[in-house]
Amino acid sequence: MRFSRMLIPTTKETPNDAVLTSHILLLRAGFIQSIGSGLYNFLPLGKITLDKVRQIVKEELDKAGCNEVHLPIVTPITLWEETGRADKFGKELLRFKDRHENNFVLSPTNEEAMVNLVRQTVKSYKQLPLNVYQINWKFRDEVRPRFGLMRGREFLMKDAYSFHATTEDMEREFALMEETYKKIFTRLGLAFRVVEADSGAIGGAGSKEFMVLADSGEDTIMVCDACDFGANVEVLSEDEKVCPKCGGGLSQTKGIEAGHIFQLGTVYSEPMKAEFLDEDQKLKPFVMGTYGIGVSRLLAGIIEQNHDENGCVWTKESAPFLVDIIVAKAKNEEQMAAAEKLYAELQSKGVDVLLDDRADKKTGFGVKIKDFELIGIPYAVVIGNDVSEGKVEFITRDGLQKESLSTENLVEQILEKLA
Amino acid sequence: MRFSRMLIPTTKETPNDAVLTSHILLLRAGFIQSIGSGLYNFLPLGKITLDKVRQIVKEELDKAGCNEVHLPIVTPITLWEETGRADKFGKELLRFKDRHENNFVLSPTNEEAMVNLVRQTVKSYKQLPLNVYQINWKFRDEVRPRFGLMRGREFLMKDAYSFHATTEDMEREFALMEETYKKIFTRLGLAFRVVEADSGAIGGAGSKEFMVLADSGEDTIMVCDACDFGANVEVLSEDEKVCPKCGGGLSQTKGIEAGHIFQLGTVYSEPMKAEFLDEDQKLKPFVMGTYGIGVSRLLAGIIEQNHDENGCVWTKESAPFLVDIIVAKAKNEEQMAAAEKLYAELQSKGVDVLLDDRADKKTGFGVKIKDFELIGIPYAVVIGNDVSEGKVEFITRDGLQKESLSTENLVEQILEKLA
Repeated sequence: MRFSRMLIPTTKETPNDAVLTSHILLLRAGFIQSIGSGLYNFLPLGKITLDKVRQIVKEELDKAGCNEVHLPIVTPITLWEETGRADKFGKELLRFKDRHENNFVLSPTNEEAMVNLVRQTVKSYKQLPLNVYQINWKFRDEVRPRFGLMRGREFLMKDAYSFHATTEDMEREFALMEETYKKIFTRLGLAFRVVEADSGAIGGAGSKEFMVLADSGEDTIMVCDACDFGANVEVLSEDEKVCPKCGGGLSQTKGIEAGHIFQLGTVYSEPMKAEFLDEDQKLKPFVMGTYGIGVSRLLAGIIEQNHDENGCVWTKESAPFLVDIIVAKAKNEEQMAAAEKLYAELQSKGVDVLLDDRADKKTGFGVKIKDFELIGIPYAVVIGNDVSEGKVEFITRDGLQKESLSTENLVEQILEKLA
Repeated sequence: MRFSRMLIPTTKETPNDAVLTSHILLLRAGFIQSIGSGLYNFLPLGKITLDKVRQIVKEELDKAGCNEVHLPIVTPITLWEETGRADKFGKELLRFKDRHENNFVLSPTNEEAMVNLVRQTVKSYKQLPLNVYQINWKFRDEVRPRFGLMRGREFLMKDAYSFHATTEDMEREFALMEETYKKIFTRLGLAFRVVEADSGAIGGAGSKEFMVLADSGEDTIMVCDACDFGANVEVLSEDEKVCPKCGGGLSQTKGIEAGHIFQLGTVYSEPMKAEFLDEDQKLKPFVMGTYGIGVSRLLAGIIEQNHDENGCVWTKESAPFLVDIIVAKAKNEEQMAAAEKLYAELQSKGVDVLLDDRADKKTGFGVKIKDFELIGIPYAVVIGNDVSEGKVEFITRDGLQKESLSTENLVEQILEKLA
């Protein structure tokens, strides 16, 4: 893509109401734009990044055998009445009436709607197990939305629900989802911990959270320096705060909850009479698990963990582009020709490239470098005066290391660095 | 994908409230499921198909230089008040209050929200032209939702909005969008006509509709047999119904409106004070165009145009899978081995393949063939008893032609037929 043709409204000013780093940087770098309390437009860079994260989540779930579906955001409240959650859920559940005075909710989560989908289509144990998911927008009417994408009102979430004939099979799927989530967070290039979220469940496995490690995290977690033990500090008794099983040392750190997996059992299927015919010809309620990932929240989590004083530092798999080709003087024909050539060659190799071809007076070399740093594209190639001597500059965003590259075999050298 | 692992609840029964062919077939073939008046779950086949159509729309818009964004579905009503549409729009505009008694709408369209996005980020003629779009769910509180995806309440729409310094430039973009839409509808394999939608505009070009030709269409259009002239019959005067410019013969046919492009001018930018600084340093309102495609409606349109008495007949680019490998007896080791081999080979060539590996007693060869015909996958390869003599059957869904293929060079023969 060409910078000159994209809507990327970067700004130096820190927005008024933003205090969290990711909120400030995503606004300043032109990824998002506020349109109301807890409501954000995703501008072109934000949309591309969201799609990249979404695609990784989708690919790993599909590999694990999950079925992707799409449910309406508007859900009849009758489904919520079947489980009693229409009453129990507080004001975060946004309710409204349609023109015929029928009651609906804007879905903040979809246990009821997904149980309804499955009870109409799955009748026999032979159709089990089944794991059904969607990646869709949800609405939670937070009393005080804040922190940008970290706690918005309308947010993108992956919600998966699995259905089983037995508890053992649900536990198998729960373990598979834990592994699948680890693959997703690892592919995203994140430092994270899986932590026990449920006190009763330590040793069991009722509920686990996936924590993106970041100083700004809202949760305090205990981690071991000798094993992969981790737990939300709130669920630990005083005894447990001293001695994990492996005997290593414990320390506290901060985490952002970006995923959560639950063993549900039959708490939704029983009241909703979601039953299947088992091998012994008896009707039984589905044994269920549920698995969430905050997809739009992950954008904030990635930046909370990966930024510096100059801006965002996207990980390779989450970045809107992998390489930014910066033409120092876009009106210089030699520079522009070299940049166009490199742009075409990298694209032909399947690399996501942004060509900063802006040629207006206000957008000099300094502005382009500042924008590269603020946006946080992993690598830049600067094509400046030295190109006439066969040289360009290669910058790695993380650490801002610079090195000179020869224009001979330039594409091969760059591909090696990206690998 | 393996049929045995996918949720594809096909059924012989015609659903109660469905009268339109596409509504009946999409329900019966397990693409969608009703969850309330005008509200549908997209089941796995429906989700895959929707994504394929969406991807084609996105690719062609991106090639035309458009910028993809994402806007919240929940929009502050204050934006709609700026243009007066909060009052003018009837009950189809669903309004509600959040917990703080602030007023919102569920967006049925996004002129105001997109003008708001652009007026905050585009200040100079140098940033023009700009065409911004999203492919997102909309809500229209129809008084009587019906015909399935043809007239649902929650629906997927591509809405694009272009911003220009001059009317001439907007007209250039309007022509570009007309060409882009033609490419989209052609790639989808649809028979369609572009028709004049606006009486005053014949000869001019204020508004054009893209009509998918189908007997069940709600609109009557006049087309010429000698040129590509077409017009909504309602906009033609008696004189115009007799003599198109080219001198050919006119006839009437039916169409489904699947796309609509408009020259808007400044009707939104003026009341919303969306202005840019022009070359002469004067503030001017953006000249706008707007361009819609009903993405979920297209699924219905494709089936209205492409079906037979046995079920759906998806076009190649819209089909959930291109090839269905039917294993006549999945418990026969030789058949299953041959099917697995073909499945792996076709996948390695990038072909979207469904392997009907169902092995339960109820799902015999006849059921698999009926499901293939109902779902409407373009091609099937039947692996049955003849495989031991080196033969398989190849079926083309459109017309149900059958031919015998040798297992020698089978992949090459199949790829040739798919091309």
